Amino acid sequence: MANAPSKLLTAVDLAGTFVFALEGATAAIAGNLDFFGLLVLSFVTALAGGVIRDLLIGDVPPAAIRTWRYATVAFFAATTVFLLYRLIAQVPLWSIMVLDAAGLGLFAIAGTEKALEFHMHPFIAILLGTVTGVGGGTVRDVLLAQVPTVLRADVYATAALAGSATMIGARKLGLNSTVSAVLGGAVCFLLRVVSVWQHWNLPKVGSP
Amino acid sequence: MANAPSKLLTAVDLAGTFVFALEGATAAIAGNLDFFGLLVLSFVTALAGGVIRDLLIGDVPPAAIRTWRYATVAFFAATTVFLLYRLIAQVPLWSIMVLDAAGLGLFAIAGTEKALEFHMHPFIAILLGTVTGVGGGTVRDVLLAQVPTVLRADVYATAALAGSATMIGARKLGLNSTVSAVLGGAVCFLLRVVSVWQHWNLPKVGSP
Amino acid sequence: MANAPSKLLTAVDLAGTFVFALEGATAAIAGNLDFFGLLVLSFVTALAGGVIRDLLIGDVPPAAIRTWRYATVAFFAATTVFLLYRLIAQVPLWSIMVLDAAGLGLFAIAGTEKALEFHMHPFIAILLGTVTGVGGGTVRDVLLAQVPTVLRADVYATAALAGSATMIGARKLGLNSTVSAVLGGAVCFLLRVVSVWQHWNLPKVGSP
Repeated sequence: MANAPSKLLTAVDLAGTFVFALEGATAAIAGNLDFFGLLVLSFVTALAGGVIRDLLIGDVPPAAIRTWRYATVAFFAATTVFLLYRLIAQVPLWSIMVLDAAGLGLFAIAGTEKALEFHMHPFIAILLGTVTGVGGGTVRDVLLAQVPTVLRADVYATAALAGSATMIGARKLGLNSTVSAVLGGAVCFLLRVVSVWQHWNLPKVGSP
Repeated sequence: MANAPSKLLTAVDLAGTFVFALEGATAAIAGNLDFFGLLVLSFVTALAGGVIRDLLIGDVPPAAIRTWRYATVAFFAATTVFLLYRLIAQVPLWSIMVLDAAGLGLFAIAGTEKALEFHMHPFIAILLGTVTGVGGGTVRDVLLAQVPTVLRADVYATAALAGSATMIGARKLGLNSTVSAVLGGAVCFLLRVVSVWQHWNLPKVGSP
Repeated sequence: MANAPSKLLTAVDLAGTFVFALEGATAAIAGNLDFFGLLVLSFVTALAGGVIRDLLIGDVPPAAIRTWRYATVAFFAATTVFLLYRLIAQVPLWSIMVLDAAGLGLFAIAGTEKALEFHMHPFIAILLGTVTGVGGGTVRDVLLAQVPTVLRADVYATAALAGSATMIGARKLGLNSTVSAVLGGAVCFLLRVVSVWQHWNLPKVGSP
């Protein structure tokens, strides 16, 4: 656990937590929440996906609360947004979208990997990878009393799903686990970025 | 686990999953969700009740994700509704209601049974049977940002509660477990069907 | 577990459950729910915080469903409100607020204590104490399809947080666990009551 790749993974994981927490804090401000609401939404957006996955696979207490690190990173992001909101509101939207896509790919892959380690069926591991990626945003929207965006619009969960499936497929084809993970993360990231750029949406019943 | 009654139980359980998933998919279309939202609502409506029960009694990972079967059935129902929506929209409402009542009875009884196996107090087992029956619909409504129907109208949860209580009562009276289960399921099913037919509702404070 | 202080704790715990359940039932009536909805909201408001805490720390089945006691107290409170609503609607609001503040302090302290017993990091124990105090009200508001009050207004979660942190701080300073608990509970209770009296709110971004 303490070797170089694992340290890198932890760093990347904390970076993803930071980005998702920034977005949660921004959503909290848009929803007129107070400072406590902002802390909660940052934490939930960044960490609820992983917490749900860990409860479902039986890794309790969930990684997100086994150390003080994740909560601290989430609350630091929340406080940053609270203090520097005018500055952060000027960050171009596309750069946040790109960071978010990177976080999504990372969370989906990490979630799939962990589900496999806990001996879940590969098909279920794909679903749990997707939950890890999109669970936080879903709970955030529920707390804001809105129908979760991920269920209504955009190629977002689908990108997570495709990334996780690619990773599993690459492993089945005999690629090693690192290559499979990078491949899956890249598919998720690119599908998300291209879909925003091209305004792709999933089909709905009744849409023309 | 591989003997005949158990195979029958699994088949009936998957049938209940299919019916509830159909209803989740229909609700997703009514709520203007996209194809991913439809998959999620089918899964959640069919399986969230059992997942909550399993998390509470400590049977982790929950049965619903221990094999690929339940998710596959739920997604198959979702895809069927997506592709054949116009056909399915013509199915008479009463037939869906009857199928749903059967699913409710089945889930409530199976949930109560499992809670007893995990040594829960009989009174708590009744509550967990009810959660198994109505939990999926409750989470579905929360995701659609609506107050869950089950809390507002109809004799629905009450039917599940009455069925579970009947089953427990029959056991206390010394009936064997199969007879008790059939009796409980029948009470739930009949109470639900008759209550829809007769437009029964539970009392509210302030209602005339 | 059967000695005098523990009996006292159980009694106080059940009293807190009763007060929170009363409030859940009142919210259910305001939300036009039926009698089943009233039972659910009473249970959830009183017990969901502790259930979430127990799932997260791995104490399964959660204390709230390990005996028939908590559910019975919650349902008794619900039935009382249902039958005597006009009487209860006349109870002065301030007295309910004071009882609620006492319940909040109790739940926050008990939650923090339990998290420490389960070897959680002190910082995480503070968060879990807060979840124990405010989780029930949060789930209640989600079921009513409203943005949880605790995220929007009032010094409520903050009081729980301050009480839990005080308790942890007092222990670090070497005070014994009973004194620390009483101190923490008092801080939570007083901060809540004074903040209502003085109309304190947390800052929001964009507020003048």
